[in-house]
Amino acid sequence: MPLLDKFQAVAAIRAGLGGDHNDPTGVVIEEILSATEGRVAGRRTILAGTNNYLGLTFDPACIDAGKRALEAQGTGTTGSRMANGSFADHTALERELAAFYDLPYGLVFSTGYAANLAVLAALLEPADAVLLDADAHASLYDGCRMSGAEIFRFKHNDPDSLEKRLRRLGERSANALIVTEGLYSVLGDTAPLAEFVSLKEQYGALLMVDEAHSLGVYGDRGRGVAEARGVLDQVDFTVGTFSKSLGAMGGFCVSPHPELDLFRYVARPFIFTASGSPATIATVREALRQLQAQPQLRENLWRNAHRLYDGLQSLGHQLGPEPSPVVAVRIGARDDALRFWNRLLEAGVYVNLMVPPASPDSHSYLRCSVSAAHTPQQIDAVLEAFRGAA
Amino acid sequence: MPLLDKFQAVAAIRAGLGGDHNDPTGVVIEEILSATEGRVAGRRTILAGTNNYLGLTFDPACIDAGKRALEAQGTGTTGSRMANGSFADHTALERELAAFYDLPYGLVFSTGYAANLAVLAALLEPADAVLLDADAHASLYDGCRMSGAEIFRFKHNDPDSLEKRLRRLGERSANALIVTEGLYSVLGDTAPLAEFVSLKEQYGALLMVDEAHSLGVYGDRGRGVAEARGVLDQVDFTVGTFSKSLGAMGGFCVSPHPELDLFRYVARPFIFTASGSPATIATVREALRQLQAQPQLRENLWRNAHRLYDGLQSLGHQLGPEPSPVVAVRIGARDDALRFWNRLLEAGVYVNLMVPPASPDSHSYLRCSVSAAHTPQQIDAVLEAFRGAA
Repeated sequence: MPLLDKFQAVAAIRAGLGGDHNDPTGVVIEEILSATEGRVAGRRTILAGTNNYLGLTFDPACIDAGKRALEAQGTGTTGSRMANGSFADHTALERELAAFYDLPYGLVFSTGYAANLAVLAALLEPADAVLLDADAHASLYDGCRMSGAEIFRFKHNDPDSLEKRLRRLGERSANALIVTEGLYSVLGDTAPLAEFVSLKEQYGALLMVDEAHSLGVYGDRGRGVAEARGVLDQVDFTVGTFSKSLGAMGGFCVSPHPELDLFRYVARPFIFTASGSPATIATVREALRQLQAQPQLRENLWRNAHRLYDGLQSLGHQLGPEPSPVVAVRIGARDDALRFWNRLLEAGVYVNLMVPPASPDSHSYLRCSVSAAHTPQQIDAVLEAFRGAA
Repeated sequence: MPLLDKFQAVAAIRAGLGGDHNDPTGVVIEEILSATEGRVAGRRTILAGTNNYLGLTFDPACIDAGKRALEAQGTGTTGSRMANGSFADHTALERELAAFYDLPYGLVFSTGYAANLAVLAALLEPADAVLLDADAHASLYDGCRMSGAEIFRFKHNDPDSLEKRLRRLGERSANALIVTEGLYSVLGDTAPLAEFVSLKEQYGALLMVDEAHSLGVYGDRGRGVAEARGVLDQVDFTVGTFSKSLGAMGGFCVSPHPELDLFRYVARPFIFTASGSPATIATVREALRQLQAQPQLRENLWRNAHRLYDGLQSLGHQLGPEPSPVVAVRIGARDDALRFWNRLLEAGVYVNLMVPPASPDSHSYLRCSVSAAHTPQQIDAVLEAFRGAA
């Protein structure tokens, strides 16, 4: 079956990763014990590589909201938003997200990946130009490709590189969309959004910011990096996810532009997907309330972030450029990183292993992420495991 | 903002649909009352346009499984399957789906749309050829496009048309994938899978069947149209969804080919999406058990399907080619269909309005679908509403 021959190369790569004790791509959390602990490979393990930034997955109010929705509304909607899958809670969540951002329009998607696919495929057509940060998430790349628009990559987080491309576009810059993230998920660095906003105003382009990893983490009210940089009201399309700080699954987009409401009629990844299950939507609505009601979650998160960043720096590790809840430890060679990752797991600490091509450069990284739910003792245990494994 | 100018045309189309009392694309189920009833536009309404074929959304065992998962495992996994998002239940569900199909390999996705995107993007590359039924679902089209493979459409459900294209491919047919559905979701007609299987054997191609609407509906054990036609063991990739007969959200693929396991490493829509929430996965596992333990659900479903099909035929309506749980009533002109749909809604019956380009031809349809949970009285009430609205 020649169609399947292409998988021989993948099988070889996979075999290379499985040489060590544990396969980093095949980790199973055998039992989840809390927002920060699980059983992995039979061992009680500190989870220091999730995206559970606010630790809300075990928030009693969220769990209770999910259970009530299951009872009252059943296990699923069995339909797309366009057909029978818009329940009152879906539209309520859209209103609440828009209100959270002080914006008139909000749209909810079934996954974060689908949100980026849908927004980009709706906004862009082949005649358009999209200016994409070179380190943007796969879902942003895939959405740009799906749209058929011409893709111009600019250097990661580099306003000069972006401006050069905008200038070259000439008149087309008015048909251009700039696409960036808030907090980048591998190295934990943030986009220079104030500079990007100046450029988009100057050249008449639009700006889309994916705050997947920064929602609930940055800004006075937890609305992301754009809020922290004071430019939230100049972002044209803010995209976010429910599967990180909000502890569930799904995605959203908010915008000052009424056209967002029309995405419902053109965005195929939105139209042809079943809507989020009642329990999911209910837990997200409650998590959004908790995010606003409990600013101390963000304080705990940052306290933990600094504790881990400073501690790893003291151990002599080379880290990402700024402290954030995502702390990437550069290891260099793939096999060294694989060994290091295995030792951490054997010491009861789970982090994410990022090797090329999944890492943003030719290096391998151990990506740690912290949660508001980590105790200082857990952060210290993670540091101790790094010390032991080095 | 010229980038947004393209939405003026969409706004005009939408305004055209909103002229009547209710907007068929903006229906909100204000309160869900059961698997077959909700409140729409303030009125108690029979839901005769969902995909809740077995009525399992309110199954007590499924709801209970979801609640227990929420309590024990929290509201979400906050990670992709590749990272921290593989919980024991995800892998258990993969094993159970594979066992249900008597196959060795199973893979679970976060939505049905993503399942088709992921499977096609993993299987196909630009040098490959894909033979796609002309009426295939949008997610199959989008997956084929995402793969970059050369797309050859064949006439809907037409083995002659498929063979012509296979013959023309010559040697390339051994690098070709045939893509079809089991039950088609608009007209309720089924694919001639025995004929398609003969052709794929003859030309050395592979066959992928999307049983999204036929899982739980066709076959002695409810495994879909391929089972009903006796060719289940010759399908290379069976794809299905959790958002129809299984009453939740997500998708899956099962296969006899070990390469399916390697999709985990290449399928970007799989790799870069958060995994299904614990409650979702738990309700699906229980629904799969109920599907097998309660064959009477399938009997009820078919009893209702025949009652509706026969009744609508007696009323003189032009229907799809065969009785099935999906019954499409051809209305013809868009504005007539819109008016008819509005009258049904005012009579307390919700069905799906399908107008071009969402319908498979130039006609407009009122798409009804039945559930095992409908009572004979509800089916009769739907028929009565059709009589009144005609």
